[in-house]
Formats: sequence, structure tokens, C-alpha cells
Amino acid sequence: MPVKLSIPEPEELLPVAGVKLGTACASIKKPGRRDLLVVELAKGSRVSGVFTKNRFCAAPVLLCREHLEAGKGIRALVVNTGNANAGTGEEGLRRARQTCRELASLLGCEESQILPFSTGVILEPLPVDKIVAGLPSCISNLSETNWFDAAEAIMTTDIQPKALSRQIAIDGRKVTVTGIAKGSGMIHPNMATMLGFVAFDARVSQKQLDELVLDAANASFNRITVDGDTSTNDSFMLISSGDSPEISGEAFGKLKAAVIEVSVFLAQAIVRDGEGATKFMSITVEKGGDESECAKIAYSIAHSPLVKTAFFASDPNLGRILAAIGYAGVDLDVNCIEVYLDDVLVAEKGGRAVSYREEDGARVMKQEEITVRVVLNRGMAATTVWTCDFSYDYVKINADYRS
Amino acid sequence: MPVKLSIPEPEELLPVAGVKLGTACASIKKPGRRDLLVVELAKGSRVSGVFTKNRFCAAPVLLCREHLEAGKGIRALVVNTGNANAGTGEEGLRRARQTCRELASLLGCEESQILPFSTGVILEPLPVDKIVAGLPSCISNLSETNWFDAAEAIMTTDIQPKALSRQIAIDGRKVTVTGIAKGSGMIHPNMATMLGFVAFDARVSQKQLDELVLDAANASFNRITVDGDTSTNDSFMLISSGDSPEISGEAFGKLKAAVIEVSVFLAQAIVRDGEGATKFMSITVEKGGDESECAKIAYSIAHSPLVKTAFFASDPNLGRILAAIGYAGVDLDVNCIEVYLDDVLVAEKGGRAVSYREEDGARVMKQEEITVRVVLNRGMAATTVWTCDFSYDYVKINADYRS
Repeated sequence: MPVKLSIPEPEELLPVAGVKLGTACASIKKPGRRDLLVVELAKGSRVSGVFTKNRFCAAPVLLCREHLEAGKGIRALVVNTGNANAGTGEEGLRRARQTCRELASLLGCEESQILPFSTGVILEPLPVDKIVAGLPSCISNLSETNWFDAAEAIMTTDIQPKALSRQIAIDGRKVTVTGIAKGSGMIHPNMATMLGFVAFDARVSQKQLDELVLDAANASFNRITVDGDTSTNDSFMLISSGDSPEISGEAFGKLKAAVIEVSVFLAQAIVRDGEGATKFMSITVEKGGDESECAKIAYSIAHSPLVKTAFFASDPNLGRILAAIGYAGVDLDVNCIEVYLDDVLVAEKGGRAVSYREEDGARVMKQEEITVRVVLNRGMAATTVWTCDFSYDYVKINADYRS
Repeated sequence: MPVKLSIPEPEELLPVAGVKLGTACASIKKPGRRDLLVVELAKGSRVSGVFTKNRFCAAPVLLCREHLEAGKGIRALVVNTGNANAGTGEEGLRRARQTCRELASLLGCEESQILPFSTGVILEPLPVDKIVAGLPSCISNLSETNWFDAAEAIMTTDIQPKALSRQIAIDGRKVTVTGIAKGSGMIHPNMATMLGFVAFDARVSQKQLDELVLDAANASFNRITVDGDTSTNDSFMLISSGDSPEISGEAFGKLKAAVIEVSVFLAQAIVRDGEGATKFMSITVEKGGDESECAKIAYSIAHSPLVKTAFFASDPNLGRILAAIGYAGVDLDVNCIEVYLDDVLVAEKGGRAVSYREEDGARVMKQEEITVRVVLNRGMAATTVWTCDFSYDYVKINADYRS
């Protein structure tokens, strides 16, 4: 079960003016399950996105980049689950284009005003006929209040839908930020098999939006890892809609904080619902020379199967954490490092802390949420990444996924 | 069970002139189990070694480096299992020194002529009193024919002892190369929780030996990975003993080939006995621009938990292999790449090969030994790494290890 992640109530997910969502059961994943989503954007909406850095990036990622560059204004997003349309070559690109063309024709816009997204099995042909057949049904139920259904429609191995809304007041006007995300395996920085969509009904310039999507991704989706695998399809899209005047200055800072809050919630939700996860771990590396070395060490810990299985077993096997610090590829004096499990100092001066008692470590390891804090004592930089443990169920889920 | 790895017959392990081995049950790991090994070397033997690059390297690794640099000639090695003496700070170093001092006094040599090795749990104090108490028993059974017992004495989570002998004729003289190794988890290039000891009864110069140990490590122990974790204690030692004249030229080439053959066997044996392994995989990347990019791609595939669980499930989920190639951090044109499972072409031109049939992939995936071959078509470099799959038992073994 997901670690401390509650299912949102549909009425908690607040409409964003200018953003309508419609879903369908198109039998792509399996019959009777929502697996297709169309998000229609009011004219004049702005969209910006960041995508996977995987060289085998999927056909829809290539098309998204192409359509965003075309600059004609995005009018709709279309998302299917059950098939990633990745590793599908020219034919995959053709099928993604066909999806965009059909939706454009239904909505009365141009093909390049559609952004397509796919998630699911890789290297299988996209069932484009089923997608095209499902589009009218999506359009017929387009509504600003369908965020919960949308969150469900994009799930793959996710156990729970992931969604959050925040409202802030800007210049006396209520602004809503609502987002949904999916992903529970193949999760790694640089956007591993995750899709995230966050929209707000306030107008910002394209330049501001382009910066904001990067800042939000770096604070959230680029800080999570489940298994170190970076997927072919990851995409995080930020949507600015509505007809407010363009905001800037302090008001923009307030909006940015809300967008980051929603993005961090969604990113952490992916880890909490990580395949087979039973524990949520924050790995913080502090007082480093620069952020890059902090990140190297944090990911070295977060990716270690030995560390992750020890957390699954609630075993304070601190040696595995120290070993992971040691092989992170950072030239360290290990005698200067302190390591904490929550508030418990476990290691210092190159070995176990004199004050450390095994029962204190065992107490922390039994918790569902644990912070590993590594203090390098050689600078002022810091970073945090979030990950989960490695359980029998991780193997089970990934050994059975296609069957 | 280990993948296609038979237990050596004790009599297949041939004595190396000048190398005597003695073991004891010292109750370090558990009562009644061989867990202590002394290897005594005839005067004039030469030793060279390579060690872990982990910054949290263990006390015995620090001492080995110090004693090899002292240059007084090595007279004995002492190896304990059950405790790694790593992350133990100053006190760990003191205990490792005490072990060396006691053995030196028993053998009548200097402390700096002893090399200590430890493997097992990290961050626990070394039970030096038990080790010291066991040394006389090791010495009392020193014999050139104890290689099998020695291989058993250094095991941790290993299911099977790992050992091999080869004999070659050099200048009309028989030369024996015999080696033992241990390790089954925390295995990664740069010598992860593995110990390897290979000895031959032929005399080479110290310079030749120093080069040979690097060449042998790079061809063997630096090409294996079980879980990507690099340990604190890994050491690979090469021993030249006996009283032959120093060999060189063609004869040295012959010796080198035999040393590499034994080292590769031992390294592969570690993967075949990898924690929870059910499959042995060779990942070969060919026609790359340089060896470094080939290795990046090979390790990206070999480390992917998604690839490893798919192999466990015998599922030809080729998309996961393509994804791992794509995120290896190499700037590739994916349309030029071919991917083979054994002899079956599975992907080309950025997608599934037209000729590929799922039943061909399924047939290969059912095998216990599988070669993944990636052809980059952009140069002449190539590399191979060996790894195993990722099973329920990997999680079980590592979640239970300390209990």
C-alpha cells in the first residue's frame, strides 16, 4: 500500500478556469477501465514542458517538442495509458500524428495545436484505432470538474490516483493551481515514466512559464527516484489559462510557491506509491562543497539496492549507507562526515558514533517515513532526494508487469 | 542455486609451490564454521594487489596498502569472514594491526609483512580476540593442499566455494595457477565485496606483477556487477612464488593468459552465485566510438532493476533494454543501433526489428545463460560485462542478512 498517501476526494480538486477534462474507457489497457484523457484548453492558454532525456524517447515526446516549437498555441492534450508508443520508430510517430490529427479535427484546430502523451508498455505498436474511437467519448464529457477522473485515467501500475489543488489570492483574485500525475516504477530524475500536468488560472508570459516549469521540475520531479530507471516518456507540463492580467513581481512569487507545492506533492506521491514501497525516505545531504556533490551522494544512497532492502527489513544496517556514501564518486574525507537517521547520530569520525545505540536506530527504521541526513562539513550546499524501499513486491510487480 | 557453477573437487585444486594454507573455525561468523584463513608464503614471494575505490574503505584495506608500500616482502595473508572491519574508525585500524602483530609473532616475521583481509557485516567491531585465538589452529594445519578449505573459509552469503586451477608448461617446467574468490552481493566494478586471491609458482619481477594484477582485474573482477554496490573491502591479490628463474617475453604472455583465465572464471563464478541469481547474462556492446561509451551502456543495462526483473521473469521485455540504452548518458542516434538477444535481432532503426517474433525472444529468455548484444555502428570499440537477474531471493537475502 502507498506510504501515507490518501486518495483525494473528487470535490477537493478545484476547477481551473479554461481547462476542461474528458475521459473514456477505450479498451487500450483493459476493457471497462478509464485509459484515455483529453484536456481542452481555452484559446490563449500557454503551455510549457520538460521531457525525458532518454535517447530512446518516445514518439509522443518527439511530437510534443515539435508542436510546442511550432508556436501556434496549444488547444488540447491527449493522454493514453496502457501503451507508451516508445521504441516504435517511424510507425510510432505516424500513429501519434494520426491521434493529433483526429483530435484536431474533432476540436476544430490544427494538428500542431495538440500535445500527445502515452504511458505503459514499451515497444508494442500503439493501438491508434482504439484511441481514435475513444476520442468522441472524451469530448462528450469535457468538464472543468473532471480532475479526479483524469487522475485515474492516466494511471499504469499506480495503486492510487495522484492529484492536489491549492488556492491563493493574487491582487484580490482567487487563483487555483490543480495538478495530476502518474508513475510508480521506472522513476528517476530527469522524469522517469512519469507524467505530470499542473494548471493554474492566471496569466503569465511564455518566458515566465518556461522558467517556472524548469524551477518546479527541479524542486520536485527531478528529485525522486524509485529504481534509478529513466523512462522514455516522462513529461511534465505546466499550463497557464484564464483571462487575468499578466502577473509578475511578488504575485508571481506567490504563484510560483503554490505551483512548487503542488508539484512536490505530486512527485512525493509517486514515490509513496512506488512499486512495492513500504517506506518513504528523504535523503538529505548538507554542508557540501556544491550541490552536485550533494546530489551524487544522495542518489548513491537512494539507488543502492542494499540500502533499499535494509530499509524494507527495518534493519539499521548503517554500514550499507556508509558504503554508498563511499562509492558515490566524491573525493571525501570520511572522518569529517556525520550521518543521522532522523534525529539519531549514527556515524561520525569514519565509524559508528560512540553515542549510538542499536535500539535507537531500530526505532527510527520501524517508521514509515525516515530521513537519512548526511553532513559533509565542507561547505554550504545541500540537497534532498526522495525515494522508497525495495521489497518483494517490487520484484513481483516488475516480473509480472506484462502478463 | 548458482547458475551453471559446479563445486570444485578438492583434488582438482592444485598446490602452488611456496603457498601454504591453513583454516580454523574461530566462531567469528558462527560456531563450527570455517571462518579464518592464513596463507603463508615462502620467503622471496612477491605480492601485488588492487583494492576498492570506496572512500569508506575498510581498516584492513588501509593496512594492506601500508604494508605493501613498506616493501619488506609479504610473508602471510590472514582473512576472516563474518565481519568486514569497515566503518570502524581508529579502533578498527588498531584491531587490524593487532591481528597482523599476533600472526607475525607466531610466524617469526615483521608486522608489516602480513596482509589482513576481512569480509562480512560492516560497522560492527572486529572480534579480534576470536581471530587471535584462532591463529594457532590455522598455523597448525598449514598445507599446500588446503585450497578447497580456504575457498570455504572466506565465504559470506556465497552458496558455493569458488576456486580453479590451471597448469601450463613454461620452458619445460610445469607452472600452476590456482585461485579462490568470494562474493555474491554488493558486487560492482572496482571490486565490490569480493576477495580474490590468485597464486602461481613462477617468478616474475615486481613491475610485471603490478601490471599483471591490473590487467587481470580489468579483464575479470572489474567487469562484473550484481547490484551496483561497491564495497568497502574488495581486494584482489596476485602472488608469485616458487624458485624458477624470472620469466619474460612469450613465456610471460602464456602465464598472463592463464592468470586471466583463472581470474575470469572466479569473477564469473561470483555472478553465477550472485544473491538470488537464476540467470547469467553477458552484456556486450560492440562497434562503439570508444570503450568508455561501450561500458556506460553495458552497465546501464546491467544495473537496471527493470531489466533484471524482466530477465528473472523470462520476459522478453525489450523496451526496458532500449530504455536503459537510452538513459546511459551517451549521445546516441538510436536509429543506428541493433540489439540482439543471443542470435535473435530484436531491435533496429529505433524500434522492434521487422523480423522479430515474440516466440524467438521468449525462447532465448528461458535459457539460464543469455547474451545481450548491442551494436552501436559508430566505431570499433567493444566491451562485455557480466551480471545476473534480480529475484525475490535477492530481496529476501538482503532483507534478512543481519538476522
